[in-house]
Amino acid sequence: MKPSTAEGTRDFTPDQVLKRNYIFDTIRSVFVKFGYLPIETPAMENLSTLSGKYGEEGDRLLFKILNNGEYLKGISPDDISSKAYKTVTPALAKRGLRYDLTVPFARFVVMHQNELTFPFKRYQIQPVWRADRPQKGRYREFYQCDVDVVGSTSLVYEAELVQIYDEVFSKLNLPVVIKFNNRKILEGIAEVAGIPERMVEMTVAIDKLDKIGLDGIKKEMGERGIDDAAIATITQILSIQSLDELQSALESSERGKLGIQEVQALLQYLGTGQTQQDIRFDITLARGLNYYTGCIFEVQAKGVAMGSIGGGGRYDNLTGVFGLKDVSGVGVSFGAERIYDVLEELKLFPADTSNSLKVLFMAFDEAAHLYAFAALGKLRAAGVNSEIYPDPGKIKKQMKYANDRQVPFVVLVGEEEMSSGLLSFKNMQSGEQEKLTIEEIIVKTQAQ
Amino acid sequence: MKPSTAEGTRDFTPDQVLKRNYIFDTIRSVFVKFGYLPIETPAMENLSTLSGKYGEEGDRLLFKILNNGEYLKGISPDDISSKAYKTVTPALAKRGLRYDLTVPFARFVVMHQNELTFPFKRYQIQPVWRADRPQKGRYREFYQCDVDVVGSTSLVYEAELVQIYDEVFSKLNLPVVIKFNNRKILEGIAEVAGIPERMVEMTVAIDKLDKIGLDGIKKEMGERGIDDAAIATITQILSIQSLDELQSALESSERGKLGIQEVQALLQYLGTGQTQQDIRFDITLARGLNYYTGCIFEVQAKGVAMGSIGGGGRYDNLTGVFGLKDVSGVGVSFGAERIYDVLEELKLFPADTSNSLKVLFMAFDEAAHLYAFAALGKLRAAGVNSEIYPDPGKIKKQMKYANDRQVPFVVLVGEEEMSSGLLSFKNMQSGEQEKLTIEEIIVKTQAQ
Repeated sequence: MKPSTAEGTRDFTPDQVLKRNYIFDTIRSVFVKFGYLPIETPAMENLSTLSGKYGEEGDRLLFKILNNGEYLKGISPDDISSKAYKTVTPALAKRGLRYDLTVPFARFVVMHQNELTFPFKRYQIQPVWRADRPQKGRYREFYQCDVDVVGSTSLVYEAELVQIYDEVFSKLNLPVVIKFNNRKILEGIAEVAGIPERMVEMTVAIDKLDKIGLDGIKKEMGERGIDDAAIATITQILSIQSLDELQSALESSERGKLGIQEVQALLQYLGTGQTQQDIRFDITLARGLNYYTGCIFEVQAKGVAMGSIGGGGRYDNLTGVFGLKDVSGVGVSFGAERIYDVLEELKLFPADTSNSLKVLFMAFDEAAHLYAFAALGKLRAAGVNSEIYPDPGKIKKQMKYANDRQVPFVVLVGEEEMSSGLLSFKNMQSGEQEKLTIEEIIVKTQAQ
Repeated sequence: MKPSTAEGTRDFTPDQVLKRNYIFDTIRSVFVKFGYLPIETPAMENLSTLSGKYGEEGDRLLFKILNNGEYLKGISPDDISSKAYKTVTPALAKRGLRYDLTVPFARFVVMHQNELTFPFKRYQIQPVWRADRPQKGRYREFYQCDVDVVGSTSLVYEAELVQIYDEVFSKLNLPVVIKFNNRKILEGIAEVAGIPERMVEMTVAIDKLDKIGLDGIKKEMGERGIDDAAIATITQILSIQSLDELQSALESSERGKLGIQEVQALLQYLGTGQTQQDIRFDITLARGLNYYTGCIFEVQAKGVAMGSIGGGGRYDNLTGVFGLKDVSGVGVSFGAERIYDVLEELKLFPADTSNSLKVLFMAFDEAAHLYAFAALGKLRAAGVNSEIYPDPGKIKKQMKYANDRQVPFVVLVGEEEMSSGLLSFKNMQSGEQEKLTIEEIIVKTQAQ
């Protein structure tokens, strides 16, 4: 039997795991520095928690887990014949795999509300599963990486999240544009254009500006029932370059003016410190998700053609669906899988993510092998990542292993080394070789 | 709707995640030091990979994933009426959730054999799922933590794995007994007792010595068809205290003598270095799993009533089932969930796992809030984990948050602090308060 992974899923080899951990560790270190706390939720959730939260499409893409035991009890053969999925599926499966981290987080906040300190600042880095058709860059199992604060409406968190984006991508040496906007401004535009009831249609169209251009979104707004006068007002406002000008244009909309105030407050917070990335207010940024109610964010990598590698925003009613009202929150996520692809494409992974082994011991014979194992013990006790080739003799085979493992230093032990106590220490990159005591080797390799 | 987690699964709050990570990070750091490399495999595997690998009981406990799309196509209503699970289940579900890390590892080695360097030293820390009836300490989703070497028969790895156990539990400050034995010795005992064909029955009985005592296992061996003479020989050998005596007793068994040689080689390797834990050869250690063929290991915590918190051994044919013959391996696993319970019970978690936030800024008014946010930026730039309370004013509320977060230092900013540049720096444990510049605060909190 020739084994394979399930379609759309991946194994990660050591090199890949180390690179992925470099990304996760970088992100996590910044979250922790900013005072965020980790939570984890189970892979498996009750379908009552997941269903209906992601639209019809989402419900279709949920992986459902077949009930255990006598799961056919209560299934009617008639429903099978008539393919009554709406009756049969809930009877066959009461659990499903996590589709994102947002809904489990909302459930978590509601269930643990009495144990948590609010504002609750949490991060969560875990895999999610979607029964999407697999294609290049789209997997059925992938990691999400979310950071949110719930229980406060303060704009200090919007500023903090922009700073987190700024610092993470700077640490990754990845130049990005961090764009932000405010849904209240988009609402203001719809009001001023006289189509408050078509705000969602307008947003969906504006969201495509990058892809289909100004004429494209005009056409789309027309098709979505927005009249020509409104379209003219909207496109005129979209062309505005300064916040002051925008303020005048939205003068008649309280909602729009509130949005501008929020943007100004965010800019004031950001102005207190240094940021390294290109941070831009972008009035055309819309983001499709309808639960956003205030600031919205999106990150794009520079110098590479790739969709957004991060995004998020303020939402006012995350936990309402589970019965806890009026909990405002704001959060962003990092597209870790895409960030991986970008770092790979731009060759931005540090060389040493791929190797953690520093020293390999080799022995010429059995006696030397035992001697080398004892020396290895001392090196490990000093905290140096090191190991021994299992079989003494055959130096060629041992050197091949050293090269395959890309180990920077090799220690050779034979009769001469044992009698002198001076071990042959070889730098694998330069080829240089010297005779050192194990204590000297410890000092040398700890320092590297 | 009142939300809940799926039965047998758990949320982890920040405090719990930090404690769990303390365990995983400790284990991982030792794996890395010993030259082991991480791999990850998908949560979801094809059932063709998983089925038949864990016995009938295991097959029953596999979580199976309902096929997506028109999954009822090809299901016959007659099979539903007659509850023909053997036909229906494979038609409804072609994938399942990972049941352990061993089978996915074997699949991984076979699929990636041409990319890997052998001996391949891997570790893997990931959750697994089992549809067991939930009870205290037994969950349907839990982490496994495995470390293995495949592609070498060298006993140097047995020694290394014992050293890894020794170092991990010492780092966790947890006193343990690390027991080892060798399946070849057990085979030798069965041979000498004249019942080589009942070696498995004998082993299963011996495995229960701790629980049911010597009389108990005698009775059980009798019930399993082992005659009285053989039982007398077996119990006599089990009482032997020294390896030399054992060698004489197993003189007539080549297999048994090979087992003793292996134990001696292991002891010779271990003798080259220092170990801190109680490491014991235990002839009554049997371990149920039948795929072990050489050394076997088991770890028990001292001073607490709990089953084994680690175990493993040498196996000669891990990958055979996937078509790759003659790959010997040896590995051990850490029972992370039980280790957690033991550390909790013995109060061995360090105090600082539960808190990573070091400084909280508070402000008396809006102007001070912005000033404090700027100072916070400097502290963060210096790498200190810190944050600001979002709403200025109401100091009592801010202090409650500081206490709930158990933050060790608080910085208060008001009018006076802004005009002098000297911030009020409070040690929350001692209650001491002093006036410091932000630069002094950086030095003070970086050092802590």
